[in-house]
Amino acid sequence: MKKILNDPARYVDDMLDGLCAAYPQHYRRAGDNGRVRAHADSAAAGKVGIVTGGGSGHLPLFHGYVGPGLAGACAIGNVFAGPRVDDCLTAMRLSNGGAGILQLYGNYGGDKMNFDMAQEFAEMEGIDVKSVRMTDDIASAPLAEQHKRRGVAGLVYAYKLAGAKADTGASLAEVTATAEKAVAACRSIGVALSACVVPESGRPAFSLTEDEMEFGMGIHGEPGIWRGKIRPAAALADDMLARLWEEIPAARGDRISLMVNSLGATPLEELYIVYQTLARRLGERQVEVVAPLIGRYATSMEMSGFSLTLCALDNELETLLRAPASSPFWSQP
Amino acid sequence: MKKILNDPARYVDDMLDGLCAAYPQHYRRAGDNGRVRAHADSAAAGKVGIVTGGGSGHLPLFHGYVGPGLAGACAIGNVFAGPRVDDCLTAMRLSNGGAGILQLYGNYGGDKMNFDMAQEFAEMEGIDVKSVRMTDDIASAPLAEQHKRRGVAGLVYAYKLAGAKADTGASLAEVTATAEKAVAACRSIGVALSACVVPESGRPAFSLTEDEMEFGMGIHGEPGIWRGKIRPAAALADDMLARLWEEIPAARGDRISLMVNSLGATPLEELYIVYQTLARRLGERQVEVVAPLIGRYATSMEMSGFSLTLCALDNELETLLRAPASSPFWSQP
Repeated sequence: MKKILNDPARYVDDMLDGLCAAYPQHYRRAGDNGRVRAHADSAAAGKVGIVTGGGSGHLPLFHGYVGPGLAGACAIGNVFAGPRVDDCLTAMRLSNGGAGILQLYGNYGGDKMNFDMAQEFAEMEGIDVKSVRMTDDIASAPLAEQHKRRGVAGLVYAYKLAGAKADTGASLAEVTATAEKAVAACRSIGVALSACVVPESGRPAFSLTEDEMEFGMGIHGEPGIWRGKIRPAAALADDMLARLWEEIPAARGDRISLMVNSLGATPLEELYIVYQTLARRLGERQVEVVAPLIGRYATSMEMSGFSLTLCALDNELETLLRAPASSPFWSQP
Repeated sequence: MKKILNDPARYVDDMLDGLCAAYPQHYRRAGDNGRVRAHADSAAAGKVGIVTGGGSGHLPLFHGYVGPGLAGACAIGNVFAGPRVDDCLTAMRLSNGGAGILQLYGNYGGDKMNFDMAQEFAEMEGIDVKSVRMTDDIASAPLAEQHKRRGVAGLVYAYKLAGAKADTGASLAEVTATAEKAVAACRSIGVALSACVVPESGRPAFSLTEDEMEFGMGIHGEPGIWRGKIRPAAALADDMLARLWEEIPAARGDRISLMVNSLGATPLEELYIVYQTLARRLGERQVEVVAPLIGRYATSMEMSGFSLTLCALDNELETLLRAPASSPFWSQP
């Protein structure tokens, strides 16, 4: 196992210790097992709190999006395993400024079960809670069954947009509506070239031969649309763009944001090679790209591959996207 | 070759096209082959210009450090190959505000030869030029032969410190002295777990077996100090820290900055696992860590491994480190 670690069973906790040691002024650590992180000002009085979480192994998800203008707290589990109910509840208490809590997370069965249960407990404590799940991965189910789709990098847009909305002093209903608007606006698809190793098992989650890729694969190695020989970057970009476009067509003069996200090992150089094609194609359609996000936003440790997310903007979403945000992973003055 | 690209011979140019398409307001593209990048305000009148460059394949080096508060322009070559003389000269002309130019780059033979020749041409044009080479990699030569050492991630500190000094309106001699102070203050060492593939050759630059690592290896695969079985993260951190400490000892109450830098594929999770040990050890010595940099700052595409850099601070360097800087890869208000 080619990983830098001490004890596979301590992978997540050692990582969390290091993260908190690096940014002591930013993160508050909580939960009886230390698996909850809130930022210093997460429970501002009268402001809607946004809580998220999921499995470890996806940095900067989830900690990177805990901060002013983003989420208030996150609860995380072991690598690729959902957070515990208690930790989701703790995250809500830490983000409770009295105006209610939005639980905003990716659509995975285990996460949903635990966040739903935590919601019940929080409501018993008198906290008003809404839940929105990101379902942006178009490869994971047809549009008619969007509620079955998994959430991937689109979640980052949802944090940014809902976080900025909460900062305006909006009500829980309004922040929830913005998060739902983000779900409607975002579509993603990914391609994997090689697997990551889950520390506790010590083995790759799947295997691909030296000249193979899997198109549409999920960030935990869930099966995709096709597996075949590696294709040129421009052909991949065109195929991905065409599939996303079917669901969120933009017309001439429209504005979108987009994210070219490395799943981990794929270098920045190659993300820009992909972006070169995307910029040309969107230019041909006279669609304007606002604030492209190119880098590592939602990874699977050292998995090789990338995903593309489109986020269709209107005036409100564009304003929210450009609003200030701050975390050790996202500095936007 | 598991890479996302179109034509290996177009790897660098496609990447540059994408980079400029993504941040059109930030980068100006120049040079007859487009291999020079300057930021919009790189030739501010009366301000010392800082010029850098080197081979491609190290993003965010070098483009990521072109921006206000950092370098003015960079000239880059093919993957792992130095920039052309003409491009170094163009980068100097683009950064010339009349107060002179500091060439600041890593200590590699090819780069030195070309930057030196460009310096001669620039001086013939009446531009006052100084050159400083980073020599932070302690594994590459003994201290007595520091002038033979290679430059690696310490270069990032040099950009930040010299760039902030230039922003104060300092003279060329003063900015050069700050860059030399950065060279004296920085020491690095790295460990590699697996190689990257140079697109034009299609082959890994070196090979390590499934349970092997190489301690002290250079960022292009230059031989290190030992090759052996993978060691635990804490043992690696201790070994690296001890070796760096021999050359820049800090006493109780001293302040340092440090960088835990992924060479590409190694995920953030594992950098924080390393940082956990470093934070504890430095805490035991009552040395204060200022603004730790943990992430991908100087990579070798998808190489697996990481490097550790220590930068010993005094009041001046700490002030310069905290000064504003801005690029698509470094936002510090």
